[in-house]
Amino acid sequence: MPSGSEHIVRSFDIELQELNQIIVRMGGMAESMLATAIDALVKRDSDLAKKVIESDKEVDVLEKAADEAAVNLIALRQPMANDLREVVAALKIASDIERIGDLAKNVAKRTIALNQTPPTRPAYAIPRMANLVQSIMKDTLDAYVERDSERAVDVWHRDEEVDEMYTGLFRELLTYMMEDPRNITPSTHLLFIAKNIERMGDHATNIAENIYYLDTGEQLDGRRPKGDTSSFQVVTPDNEATDIAEKDPQENGE
Amino acid sequence: MPSGSEHIVRSFDIELQELNQIIVRMGGMAESMLATAIDALVKRDSDLAKKVIESDKEVDVLEKAADEAAVNLIALRQPMANDLREVVAALKIASDIERIGDLAKNVAKRTIALNQTPPTRPAYAIPRMANLVQSIMKDTLDAYVERDSERAVDVWHRDEEVDEMYTGLFRELLTYMMEDPRNITPSTHLLFIAKNIERMGDHATNIAENIYYLDTGEQLDGRRPKGDTSSFQVVTPDNEATDIAEKDPQENGE
Repeated sequence: MPSGSEHIVRSFDIELQELNQIIVRMGGMAESMLATAIDALVKRDSDLAKKVIESDKEVDVLEKAADEAAVNLIALRQPMANDLREVVAALKIASDIERIGDLAKNVAKRTIALNQTPPTRPAYAIPRMANLVQSIMKDTLDAYVERDSERAVDVWHRDEEVDEMYTGLFRELLTYMMEDPRNITPSTHLLFIAKNIERMGDHATNIAENIYYLDTGEQLDGRRPKGDTSSFQVVTPDNEATDIAEKDPQENGE
Repeated sequence: MPSGSEHIVRSFDIELQELNQIIVRMGGMAESMLATAIDALVKRDSDLAKKVIESDKEVDVLEKAADEAAVNLIALRQPMANDLREVVAALKIASDIERIGDLAKNVAKRTIALNQTPPTRPAYAIPRMANLVQSIMKDTLDAYVERDSERAVDVWHRDEEVDEMYTGLFRELLTYMMEDPRNITPSTHLLFIAKNIERMGDHATNIAENIYYLDTGEQLDGRRPKGDTSSFQVVTPDNEATDIAEKDPQENGE
């Protein structure tokens, strides 16, 4: 027969499992919101984009549920040390996923705006970048479920590739704008869409840092090479793109 | 002589006070980072902008300190109900302030990029918008210190004005781009600077929502009229700006 203390421990584990399930569900929803938003962008389908905007509410509801579950877990089970760290990490991860959902919603809103302008030269790099971010999100969730710090490190490094794609897109879109003023409005929306996707990658790396900390007790941040140097980009109308990045372009996304 | 339980309660209060002091210090730093970044922008002073980029590290260090203080407080004092709510809110507020610091850093980075391009028509609305956001941040911190939910509601509503200024700026900057392709690179950086400032306002409203919840136990979100309709803006080269905002342009910032 289990002792009282074992009983408490088991309740904690079950409730933590429930909290984790909420988070995994949130993550799956945010991932599918991004996929649908990009689908809507490529097909110029405003109805589909509206569905993404609607789904964001469900993610918000789940975040509140996760917050409540975490606070109840702390209050009722009074976890110590590692257990407490788990719950606090869950709170942070839920907040990052909520932001990813918001960003997917913003992609959908910009898609609706884009559909009001004539089709322009498509920026093929956007769906490519979105695919990469989606696969990063998927691996991040898997790493969370399995408490796999190696996979978390892998995710963390892959965000660099997202940043590089974004920097390339930034130059490309500015060049389109310079070619024809009619491209300015659509390209600006595409620029913000690309920025939103790039920031989803940043939130995934935040989550990866939390997973790493949970699994190893050590911090992962501050050592990542950053590939998004677009804040420092100067593109001139004669198509000369200059990268004036400083020596230390560390940033946490924008 | 205080009983054991009173003694614990008093330790909790003192430690919570210490945690709050870290948060207020973080907030003051983020506020002054924004002020300095805008100063650097107006004066085209890259050295000043670099100082802002440097200070962000201090904000990050303070956030880690706040996180640690909160986790220790929960582990050692095992607070219940309202006290636990206080600590969880502090965690969330610290994370919002850290994001505000990041955004100020991004403004500074874009300022350095802008200084590599010839001076263009200044967007006077940016310092105006930054002033408003700074005053909102100040009032938010005051509301936090005083647990003043009325002031939090006031802050929450004032963010609408920020969103409206941003939407105006979005149109203005797109018009500049259409006038002369040489304006495209600087105007794009200004657009991102404006977006960064607008998002600082969003983080301040997140904090206001937390304060309101702390003070009243009720949620404030979901009822705010949103003024940033720029995601839905279509600006055409003949200067006709059309607002195609849907009926429900609720968003959480971008």
